[in-house]
Amino acid sequence: MQSDNCGPDRPAHPGIFPTREAGKSDHEPAERSVDFPVSVVLPAGGTGERTGLQTPKQFCSFLGRPLISYTVQTFERLSWIQSIVVVVAKEHMDLMTDIIQRFQHRKVRVVPGGSTRHRSIWNGVLALGGEAEGEAAAGDRPKVVIIHDAVRPFVEEDFLYKITMAAKEQGCTESDFEFGTECLHLALQYCGTNAKLIQGPPTLWKVTYKRDLAAAESIIKDALSQSACIITGGSAHAATLAGALQKAAGALDTELEVIPDLMGENASYLLKEWNFIRVSVNCSCLSEVEALLGDLEAADRALLHPVVVIWVHLSCSGESSISGGKVEPDVLMELASAAKLQNILLYGIQLQQSKEIERWERSVLKVMEITSALIRERSPALVGQLLQA
Amino acid sequence: MQSDNCGPDRPAHPGIFPTREAGKSDHEPAERSVDFPVSVVLPAGGTGERTGLQTPKQFCSFLGRPLISYTVQTFERLSWIQSIVVVVAKEHMDLMTDIIQRFQHRKVRVVPGGSTRHRSIWNGVLALGGEAEGEAAAGDRPKVVIIHDAVRPFVEEDFLYKITMAAKEQGCTESDFEFGTECLHLALQYCGTNAKLIQGPPTLWKVTYKRDLAAAESIIKDALSQSACIITGGSAHAATLAGALQKAAGALDTELEVIPDLMGENASYLLKEWNFIRVSVNCSCLSEVEALLGDLEAADRALLHPVVVIWVHLSCSGESSISGGKVEPDVLMELASAAKLQNILLYGIQLQQSKEIERWERSVLKVMEITSALIRERSPALVGQLLQA
Repeated sequence: MQSDNCGPDRPAHPGIFPTREAGKSDHEPAERSVDFPVSVVLPAGGTGERTGLQTPKQFCSFLGRPLISYTVQTFERLSWIQSIVVVVAKEHMDLMTDIIQRFQHRKVRVVPGGSTRHRSIWNGVLALGGEAEGEAAAGDRPKVVIIHDAVRPFVEEDFLYKITMAAKEQGCTESDFEFGTECLHLALQYCGTNAKLIQGPPTLWKVTYKRDLAAAESIIKDALSQSACIITGGSAHAATLAGALQKAAGALDTELEVIPDLMGENASYLLKEWNFIRVSVNCSCLSEVEALLGDLEAADRALLHPVVVIWVHLSCSGESSISGGKVEPDVLMELASAAKLQNILLYGIQLQQSKEIERWERSVLKVMEITSALIRERSPALVGQLLQA
Repeated sequence: MQSDNCGPDRPAHPGIFPTREAGKSDHEPAERSVDFPVSVVLPAGGTGERTGLQTPKQFCSFLGRPLISYTVQTFERLSWIQSIVVVVAKEHMDLMTDIIQRFQHRKVRVVPGGSTRHRSIWNGVLALGGEAEGEAAAGDRPKVVIIHDAVRPFVEEDFLYKITMAAKEQGCTESDFEFGTECLHLALQYCGTNAKLIQGPPTLWKVTYKRDLAAAESIIKDALSQSACIITGGSAHAATLAGALQKAAGALDTELEVIPDLMGENASYLLKEWNFIRVSVNCSCLSEVEALLGDLEAADRALLHPVVVIWVHLSCSGESSISGGKVEPDVLMELASAAKLQNILLYGIQLQQSKEIERWERSVLKVMEITSALIRERSPALVGQLLQA
């Protein structure tokens, strides 16, 4: 039913949502080199009238994080972006400052907006000028200022690089002054910096109506659901299951990697946007998944997004059992409730190994379907459940 | 985390998705009276280039049903709409005919499109003319023809009524001919019918980009998730739980009604867009939920949308147990797998009655959170699971 080749569960542009660690993700091209200072002004003073909501849309939350933080993250991850100024309405200064602290944004300053959008941009550009004057030599003054709608979170590095280089080479053209907005004048006059008004591609769409919130959430969820990492603990049975899951995942368009543990080089998985599947064989004591949760917390991996951890409990009747085959649902629920406070969503799946090939393949497919659904939906209501495959 | 007051889980216009049974839903205003014949032409020949998909977007599926069927349903449910002509590309004639049969659409004819959009509309209008000539007296010839994009499924009856009356009263004005498209000429020239080009409200948005598919799915899911019906079987314990759930549902913005059974007047719940929660007390044999599934199948309730049925198993230690307190997960899974073939999604939740008020309230809240998540997401991967509250 959900296997339509045009179901809405896949984004048109799977890579458009940036990962936090620039250059580290497998889904992202290598970072561009920009050898001059670039700054960003994000006007975020809108009232969100058209969404029909009380909260302005830049402060609406997706998976527990406000939209504005996603937009900031998009720019912040690029090493060649020097500084970011977010311009918000006076009454939202405290809220915005809290967001910056909570999600540990660096490079960001907040300034109050003016009575119109253009006055707000003016304030932002003025803040950049002041920053360059007060804190650094003229060499650090931004050569290019990108003025970008705070409610257009899905902008790609390739595009930002292209427009930055174009702005550097062309300066402000006469036609920009003719057809552009006052922003260009402001940037030139008060910051001593060239500015350029940019026409964006369709991916640079603006969150405008309430239906756009659903589309944005879907894009974010898709981007976070593309890959998962199976940890086998070195068990041969677990590796067999992991191999079968990889095969099943191919049909579901999910990338699965299999590793024995998170030691050595594998620790780098903790720094990437992965979801985790921990397979335990005949061990129902949860100590293995507890260790994984500890690693994730130590790496502060769930700061920006909830991380999904799926504990798969495989019972093999022929094997000796370390701690008995029966899982206590209450214990899993308690562990999941604690993890949820750390923004880690823990779910359980149990399955029985079978020598009947057909039955085994059906179980494996079920594990994969459940896993995909849990990773995609990230439902807080279902954490701690022990599902059957 | 999901409780943001502007989360994308709620539609801007909760009532915009029409129910199938005109005038029967509590969410819908009474039907308007229109005393002249009105027909609809739905041009659906697009290739869906902008979504970046192989399947044209009018044939993309949402919860197992193509978008075009939602648009057809929107018009079909209105008694004052006489006939609907869907114009599709020649290669999609069979597909569209299958869709009409599968979802039991009445009032609908399919005609092949032309080489351009306007030629397609021409064909559609010609078909209306032929229909009136061949099959009925001139009195049945449509007085108003609504030409409506097939990929704008979310149109409200109020708006259709308003524009229909305006079209009847004003005819085709000169300004329509001046500024409208050829459609107006076509309708007038070949059908002998007045036509009017209509400017729609924001809810009349068009599914254009792939992100719009996600927004459309979200609107459809929201519309199907607004209300659920709790069946208590007349048990006092079940009624107590149902009352507590109603209280908890208030905070989650879900409408819950409590009924003892589906007998007599309550049978009308089977005809509405409700989700069902069946509470069984100390009875783990599933016969009660089986009876409900039988009723739903008999009423053909899952024809247009998957129906969610949640079986809540409440264990009260003080009560005598009819069939033992332990639920066999395999039995529930088998029943759910069979129901899924009928487009009914069955899930289970079990909880233990507790005399500790705090513990009991926590369990009730958990039932409600799980229920809301299951109803909202309609995940086929999770059917047959027995969840813990």
